[in-house]
Amino acid sequence: MRVSNLMLTTLRNVPAEAEITSHKLLLRGGFIRRVTSGIYAYMPMMWKVLEKITKIVQEEMNAKGCLQTLLPQIHPADLWKESGRWEGYTAGEGIMFNLKDRQEKELGLAPTHEEVITKIAGESINSYKQLPVNLYQIQTKFRDEIRPRFGLMRSREFIMKDAYSFHQNKSDLKLTYKEMDDAYRKIFRRCGLETVAVDADSGAIGGSASQEFMVTAEAGEDMILISSDGLYSANQEKAVSRYSDPIISGFNKAEVITTPNQNSIEELCRTQSFDPSQIIKVIVMLAILEEGIKQPILVSIRGDQELNIVKLTNSISKHLDKLVIDIFPITEEQLSIEGLDQLPFGSIAPDLENTFLSNAKSWEKEFLRFADLTVSELKNFVCGANKKDHHRIGMNWDLIGGLPKEIDIRKANPGERCIHDEKQILNECRGIEVGHIFQLGCKYSKSLNATFTNQEGNQEPFWMGCYGIGVSRLAQAAVEQNNDENGIIWPLTIAPYEVIITVANIEDINQKALGEKLYKQLKKEKVDVLFDDRKERAGVKFKDADLIGIPWRIVVGRDSVSEEVELFERCTNSIKSLKAEKALQELIKEINLKKS
Amino acid sequence: MRVSNLMLTTLRNVPAEAEITSHKLLLRGGFIRRVTSGIYAYMPMMWKVLEKITKIVQEEMNAKGCLQTLLPQIHPADLWKESGRWEGYTAGEGIMFNLKDRQEKELGLAPTHEEVITKIAGESINSYKQLPVNLYQIQTKFRDEIRPRFGLMRSREFIMKDAYSFHQNKSDLKLTYKEMDDAYRKIFRRCGLETVAVDADSGAIGGSASQEFMVTAEAGEDMILISSDGLYSANQEKAVSRYSDPIISGFNKAEVITTPNQNSIEELCRTQSFDPSQIIKVIVMLAILEEGIKQPILVSIRGDQELNIVKLTNSISKHLDKLVIDIFPITEEQLSIEGLDQLPFGSIAPDLENTFLSNAKSWEKEFLRFADLTVSELKNFVCGANKKDHHRIGMNWDLIGGLPKEIDIRKANPGERCIHDEKQILNECRGIEVGHIFQLGCKYSKSLNATFTNQEGNQEPFWMGCYGIGVSRLAQAAVEQNNDENGIIWPLTIAPYEVIITVANIEDINQKALGEKLYKQLKKEKVDVLFDDRKERAGVKFKDADLIGIPWRIVVGRDSVSEEVELFERCTNSIKSLKAEKALQELIKEINLKKS
Repeated sequence: MRVSNLMLTTLRNVPAEAEITSHKLLLRGGFIRRVTSGIYAYMPMMWKVLEKITKIVQEEMNAKGCLQTLLPQIHPADLWKESGRWEGYTAGEGIMFNLKDRQEKELGLAPTHEEVITKIAGESINSYKQLPVNLYQIQTKFRDEIRPRFGLMRSREFIMKDAYSFHQNKSDLKLTYKEMDDAYRKIFRRCGLETVAVDADSGAIGGSASQEFMVTAEAGEDMILISSDGLYSANQEKAVSRYSDPIISGFNKAEVITTPNQNSIEELCRTQSFDPSQIIKVIVMLAILEEGIKQPILVSIRGDQELNIVKLTNSISKHLDKLVIDIFPITEEQLSIEGLDQLPFGSIAPDLENTFLSNAKSWEKEFLRFADLTVSELKNFVCGANKKDHHRIGMNWDLIGGLPKEIDIRKANPGERCIHDEKQILNECRGIEVGHIFQLGCKYSKSLNATFTNQEGNQEPFWMGCYGIGVSRLAQAAVEQNNDENGIIWPLTIAPYEVIITVANIEDINQKALGEKLYKQLKKEKVDVLFDDRKERAGVKFKDADLIGIPWRIVVGRDSVSEEVELFERCTNSIKSLKAEKALQELIKEINLKKS
Repeated sequence: MRVSNLMLTTLRNVPAEAEITSHKLLLRGGFIRRVTSGIYAYMPMMWKVLEKITKIVQEEMNAKGCLQTLLPQIHPADLWKESGRWEGYTAGEGIMFNLKDRQEKELGLAPTHEEVITKIAGESINSYKQLPVNLYQIQTKFRDEIRPRFGLMRSREFIMKDAYSFHQNKSDLKLTYKEMDDAYRKIFRRCGLETVAVDADSGAIGGSASQEFMVTAEAGEDMILISSDGLYSANQEKAVSRYSDPIISGFNKAEVITTPNQNSIEELCRTQSFDPSQIIKVIVMLAILEEGIKQPILVSIRGDQELNIVKLTNSISKHLDKLVIDIFPITEEQLSIEGLDQLPFGSIAPDLENTFLSNAKSWEKEFLRFADLTVSELKNFVCGANKKDHHRIGMNWDLIGGLPKEIDIRKANPGERCIHDEKQILNECRGIEVGHIFQLGCKYSKSLNATFTNQEGNQEPFWMGCYGIGVSRLAQAAVEQNNDENGIIWPLTIAPYEVIITVANIEDINQKALGEKLYKQLKKEKVDVLFDDRKERAGVKFKDADLIGIPWRIVVGRDSVSEEVELFERCTNSIKSLKAEKALQELIKEINLKKS
């Protein structure tokens, strides 16, 4: 491709809308253009990147026997109501764009395809003989993000590869899950990315186990915790760790003390010389569940620990078998609106009585109580007295009505010791999620009544897995991981072009002729080559080539009289002067090496 | 691919929802599945067909120097308001799905991309030096069809290739338009389709010239008129022809006659012994224009001719420079609602006075009057007297206030003589539109203020063209054109698989071994081969292979002991018994021949 035909328009200045490096570089290089909030056009060079990623994804999916399909983007609401996700995805979190057609039928724009594919599998697959099957598609998906940002990282339209597998039992599902893990590692490696696979929360998709693939990058939205030996890695949302032992409490007599203005753990410790690990912190929250249920929650956790809201949300969901649409701490204002007396904030204890809720207008009238693992074996602890400016010391669970339901709801942090080996420490890094694989189990096949005939001749729901890759996000993550002050440094396998021939002065007959000759030869060798034939100054062309990040550059300049060129490698900034023939040979060798 | 891994589920019965052959066969073969009205999932074999068509389209577009992109599917309403199409596409015809996001911003789901691409071109292209440029994409588009039907023929989600070209002048646009015509002919020929290129109406897209590409098939929704010599072909919506001479009227004296109960041309002719060609028929219509304007229209046309509503709509639009959102004949009921006196239906003349409209509540108060070319030179004609049960005879235009604006608004019909050569007769055939190319001119660049700097350093709006191919529709049109009572007969180049190896009895060791051997060899030769390894009766396998339409079949049966197989060609139903090696050679030769 000749640059003169490429509609190349690069920007010297950083567009105001961009916050992170990759977003800035993609805009400056003319790879993407914003059409409206969170919605971008992929311009010709970006399309080539996406096409190369797509091809790698297809090859690795096909190698595992997956079948490509294309499912609709507009979904009937009925199907999502059947699975129970319509409300949460529309009125609730509002992540699904939705509309009515000319017949006033409710429709949604698909952010994901469990419903549609499960329905189709139920209708198409009759017998266990047709299993397992793994169907995938590569397609634009939609999410009405609350705060679209970072370009393609959190956009409202984005390209996904999503796959859905169907099995006759759990062990078959696990085999495919492992195969997908393998395919994903190959895909990311072939794309030239450094990724890490981490234990993850399954979120709104659901299921029993899930794993995310993260491109490591400082601008990543996710915090990852990795053990020093590399055997454990998890998204902080999901991560577990050993917590420190509490400082033994000396209060072996139960009594109530006055604690004026000591409403935080910090104030209490400072004034009373307690250690935070001796205190039970109680957090009161309200969870909005599906069907509009408003459930007050009472969480007990050790004073030196932080609550992990994702773990808590999952626990509530699992315990009540209801979707949590929203969750937040209860405020004084909310209590007033609900017609309730004020709670003794700062002095609430795990045994706060349900009678506090008796007059609630719309809330449930009993607290759902949870205790984090950090408090279950605590002895002689400090806790609130359910009365403003009063606390209790020397308490034990039997004195306050027993231990509530024990669950892990604490946030694991960098520096803590690992569960699998106490000698290992958790280290942190930041990551961009580019893949996520799930063992769904029978969640969707049961709710949508999708069954097959098993070996015994009985109807049984499918076991399912699902597997996503954010294709457009991956493209930007590659830029976030590979750039310098001059611009993008595309990994060779997903670069829009592998080589750029830069003719320093296109009006010089020798330079032009040698450039054209090399261009022709490289095309013949099936190298994906760009030929900068513009009548621009050499400096402008070099700057553009650096910015758009083409891995290799052949500079045809003054020495072209003696058939000599410069071979420049973008990722190392190394330059060699070589005879043109030799440069071609070396280049083709290097390219084939990197692609294999 | 092994059939046992293909999730193949064929249906013996014709699904009730399908009306035309291709729709029935695609459902029966398991190629597509309906998800909701007008919305289909493309299953694995269909995806392969679409992929092959896509590749052919890409190759031919790239060969013309076009650049592939991917534009958003969600468009901000503002952009469509700027071009003036929002109202017509939403509230008007309602063809564009539309919704509001969480910020209550109006959005539309793209049925076409003139607005978005024009905006981007205006922002990205600075100079004439960057022109011409032709950007294309292959993408799912949306139309909220009034009556979705015929499977992928008129669906609400469909795959399109759409291209948009930008030029510095009209002659450059014409060059590219011609190049696209050439590319389209190559694409359809390579897809194995018989198509005809016809003059077409530009519809809601607009512009000065346009041409459709039609797959000829009896189930086609469009009527095409083609001259015997093939030099002229047009969609009936657009077609022109020579009209017959009128029978000379003998009434050379103007007078009013009473014509009780002779309200139709037919009754009038029967009772009065007139010939229809001597009569001026007047049709009163109401056009709903953008901005809610309601314009009464008075159309005069010869009594033996039919009105072409598409031509009329375009004429109104052009004349008033306003979009026509709807148009229909005025009824007695509408006159009552509007508070107007009844019109003398059956006796209306071209000179019906505007005073009829004086008391209109919301309509414009003057008729827009048109006369078809068939009436402009008519002499001594018969027309209404604007009074119930009265007509005038021996009339001439000077007696009734002169000829209204002359335009061509008559429908051309099969059997009529051609304009380019009166010896040529128009023949009819039916077609399925699979491609449409347009010379848009400056319509969108002007309304969206998209300009470039010309050679003189001045800002000028782009000249534009646009070029569409209905990719999913093409796939179904191929089936409509290529099938028999046993099923589909895919053209080789777009068939889901080129060859199917059918092992008659998979439990027979010899048969299985030979089948596996051939499968391996064909894969090695890069033939796209399907291996029917199912434990089914041979008859079932043959029926399935016929239904899904694989062009070639190798049958491995009893003679496999002596390495003998049958080679079956789907499109000719010819069978040859051959040594396996020989069959392979012949097959590979035939496939390469058809693909070249």
